[in-house]
Amino acid sequence: MSTTGEAGTTDGRLLRGDRSRRTIARHAVDVASIEGLEGVSIGRLATDLGVSKGGVQTLFGTKERLQLAAVSAAREAFHDAVVAPALRVPRGVARLRALVEHWIRYVEAPLFPGGCFWTATLAEFDSRPGAVRDALRGQHQDWLDLLAGELAEAARAREISELDTQLAAFQIDAVLTAANVALRMGDAEAVDMARQVVAGLLGAASR
Amino acid sequence: MSTTGEAGTTDGRLLRGDRSRRTIARHAVDVASIEGLEGVSIGRLATDLGVSKGGVQTLFGTKERLQLAAVSAAREAFHDAVVAPALRVPRGVARLRALVEHWIRYVEAPLFPGGCFWTATLAEFDSRPGAVRDALRGQHQDWLDLLAGELAEAARAREISELDTQLAAFQIDAVLTAANVALRMGDAEAVDMARQVVAGLLGAASR
Repeated sequence: MSTTGEAGTTDGRLLRGDRSRRTIARHAVDVASIEGLEGVSIGRLATDLGVSKGGVQTLFGTKERLQLAAVSAAREAFHDAVVAPALRVPRGVARLRALVEHWIRYVEAPLFPGGCFWTATLAEFDSRPGAVRDALRGQHQDWLDLLAGELAEAARAREISELDTQLAAFQIDAVLTAANVALRMGDAEAVDMARQVVAGLLGAASR
Repeated sequence: MSTTGEAGTTDGRLLRGDRSRRTIARHAVDVASIEGLEGVSIGRLATDLGVSKGGVQTLFGTKERLQLAAVSAAREAFHDAVVAPALRVPRGVARLRALVEHWIRYVEAPLFPGGCFWTATLAEFDSRPGAVRDALRGQHQDWLDLLAGELAEAARAREISELDTQLAAFQIDAVLTAANVALRMGDAEAVDMARQVVAGLLGAASR
């Protein structure tokens, strides 16, 4: 590819456009984690980042596309912080424990200023059918499937007793979500309660 | 009290004012169950109900006071639909089962168009300190205390084995909340999963 002349200029513009898109989408995630995705508007993002509203408009077009970009950016950041590190440890109970501990770190640190992006946005959009809800639902289902898959692997390897993997994944996700909300309101002990529930579910595991 | 003359007129106005406040607050609950409490504004409520913005302003003053009135109205409606019927059955396991079944009916019916008011608003306000969050947190703590109290009663009466009542209440609340979100997105089986978790916690109960 040419790095000079017309094609170079186009590449450069695309690159800058891509970088701007990422910066804006990442800020949209932070806003949504505190105020929900409804707080993510083209005008609001432009003001926060000191760029022109027209510029944000050109990059994203509509509020819904901006919200969808925020969901994608959150998914990527969540993957890097929670899923990827756990994928480096052996499957089954060890990976489940890693997923839960990285998840807890993800809300305690927190990665996003308002805590868990999914807790904030799923409860916000669960009654609003559309592309944003579908994207949130897909991400949530992938997370449940990941937990259920590792639970099945743990049972297959006889690390834990046979159990209903969908039910156990539902429970783990439910207590983590509840712990996040409690933590945001200052009740830090809820995190320990979530840990105890997970330990109970993995009770038959070798320690 | 006089029913005619000046005092009577004042009473009548107060009564009408109180009735209007209730109507507006109850509609605010419905809006918040779908869009969150941020969607509850004086202008929005006035438009929806076909009344003047000035009238709503006179009755509530600020958006925050309107949001607090919505929390109170939701608390009252929740009490009537979920708590009051359960208080009519014997304490312990029977009352716990009644609380859970009435709660499920409350989101399945649903009492509010967006499902559980608390799920929608707690996740929305957990990162926003202030009077609204305090009111939501108080209501949530009362609900957890009610569950924990009945669990303690069930253990005292030897209906169930000794257990950590705070932890079990946290779990019951967490799975009900998760079931509500799943139900809003069309996953009806989550309600059965919540029931299974509760049945597991009350497992030692006489059937």
